[in-house]
Amino acid sequence: MSGVIYEKVALIGLGLIASSITHAAKRTGLVGEFTGYARSQETRDTARELDLCTVYDTAAEAVEGADLVILCVPVGAMGSVMKDIAPHLKSGATLSDVGSVKRAVIEAVEPYVPEDVHFVPAHPLAGTEHSGPRSGFAELFDNRWNIVVPASDYTDRDAVERLKTFWKGLGALVDEMDADHHDLVLAVTSHTPHLIAYTMVGVADDLARVTDTEVVNYSAAGFRDFTRIAASDPTMWRDVFLTNKDATLEILGRFTEELFALQRAIRTGDGDHLHDYFTRTRSIRRGIIEAGQDTDAPNFGRGPANT
Amino acid sequence: MSGVIYEKVALIGLGLIASSITHAAKRTGLVGEFTGYARSQETRDTARELDLCTVYDTAAEAVEGADLVILCVPVGAMGSVMKDIAPHLKSGATLSDVGSVKRAVIEAVEPYVPEDVHFVPAHPLAGTEHSGPRSGFAELFDNRWNIVVPASDYTDRDAVERLKTFWKGLGALVDEMDADHHDLVLAVTSHTPHLIAYTMVGVADDLARVTDTEVVNYSAAGFRDFTRIAASDPTMWRDVFLTNKDATLEILGRFTEELFALQRAIRTGDGDHLHDYFTRTRSIRRGIIEAGQDTDAPNFGRGPANT
Repeated sequence: MSGVIYEKVALIGLGLIASSITHAAKRTGLVGEFTGYARSQETRDTARELDLCTVYDTAAEAVEGADLVILCVPVGAMGSVMKDIAPHLKSGATLSDVGSVKRAVIEAVEPYVPEDVHFVPAHPLAGTEHSGPRSGFAELFDNRWNIVVPASDYTDRDAVERLKTFWKGLGALVDEMDADHHDLVLAVTSHTPHLIAYTMVGVADDLARVTDTEVVNYSAAGFRDFTRIAASDPTMWRDVFLTNKDATLEILGRFTEELFALQRAIRTGDGDHLHDYFTRTRSIRRGIIEAGQDTDAPNFGRGPANT
Repeated sequence: MSGVIYEKVALIGLGLIASSITHAAKRTGLVGEFTGYARSQETRDTARELDLCTVYDTAAEAVEGADLVILCVPVGAMGSVMKDIAPHLKSGATLSDVGSVKRAVIEAVEPYVPEDVHFVPAHPLAGTEHSGPRSGFAELFDNRWNIVVPASDYTDRDAVERLKTFWKGLGALVDEMDADHHDLVLAVTSHTPHLIAYTMVGVADDLARVTDTEVVNYSAAGFRDFTRIAASDPTMWRDVFLTNKDATLEILGRFTEELFALQRAIRTGDGDHLHDYFTRTRSIRRGIIEAGQDTDAPNFGRGPANT
């Protein structure tokens, strides 16, 4: 990848994702110039200190003349931010976002999108347990998927293809699907697993007979991965569950149904049911490793064995 | 660490843990000689090929004259294996195991323990998604905890301390607690998280509208860690749930209680409840990193960014 794809890109919200976009783009010079805005003075100061982009004190100034505007704020804040910037968007500009839910973002943002602006929502499936501008890094999107979700069937194809080329240039793999299917897929692969992890960590935290120290020391036995997932940004996740309510509740329903069946098998001592179930789940794992979405290194690069 | 702690160590069962014990011991010469036995001909042949130890075709021959005998078979098989070897144990020998559940192992094994043998159960909190003799490696126990659970208050202290020294020599951190407390702690940090992970992966597998490919490609969003946990050995885990039934069911009860509260918060749109809950779970994560039980590297050494 090389060559400028967008002369001027405006980032509204300057957290992990926005920060990583600037770092990744600088590797290949995809972008002529980055501008940015964040609601909090502290985040704006940090972004200036890190020299991520030209930081403005209002979103309106930041999007002025931008060829691509990416909304990088929590899903629940997309609508109000869009309302502020709509009158200032450049004619012919592409408007996108990085929200983890797509139907709700389209419903909140689309009413404000000017006729001459191309709205192409997207969702990079990449993140870490850390948040804020300091947590960004250039490799965050490498080999990770970005799902592009055109807001309507009438969305300008050139604008869609250009945004895809941009994300490929940031290192991502790109796919395209409609908003409702995206929200269901993510409810399975991300939203419900996160809720479950948050729940399990909360249970351990509550359990008085087991001290924090024991939970911490013995976490390597499996709980550890739950705590990483359950350390993600609370505001972002609150908004995800409130805005992808239907799909999350549907998957949760299926989850508790299965869980109760396994619970009954434990109570009744039905070892065959448990063994069959545990055998079936191994195949998906193999697929993920073959697809390059994880390593099968014994310790994931964790611990003294690998450091 | 150096110097021989046990002249002769017999490993009954030659999977990931037994194999790793031999590799780890060879780093520092803790053991004069390893003998071993596995029920399956194929496993015995593999162990011979890997030269892990002197492999015998019966457990009785393997334990002959051993100063330490470690049962490395699934929890459900401990009793019958013990019945076979009991008459052949050396007077004054230490008998231990590596089972993930301790009360059930003590109940199954203790009745067969000769008066002149010291029974000191233990549980190394280390493992990977891989099983079998080929999956063992020397660093598996490094900086991971091993919980030693003396079978009774009358257990010989010298035998207990010697076993602790042995495990420290293999790289482990060592703690001591009673069987019931161990089983509760592990139900929280390992058993229930595993059951939940197995369940979530099973749900995704069932969900016809979401193809395997999508689940696989988009797994990086959180589901990936669940699939790793849910790839563990089915027989081992069947036995864990059947033998740690009470503690697992208790923790599962608390889990579903919390999950339903969060589910209600999603349904009713109670963002504050969700945000407060998600904020609380972050502190445990920090503790785990400070305790050196995980790394906070953004990608866990996974993916192109780190390979």
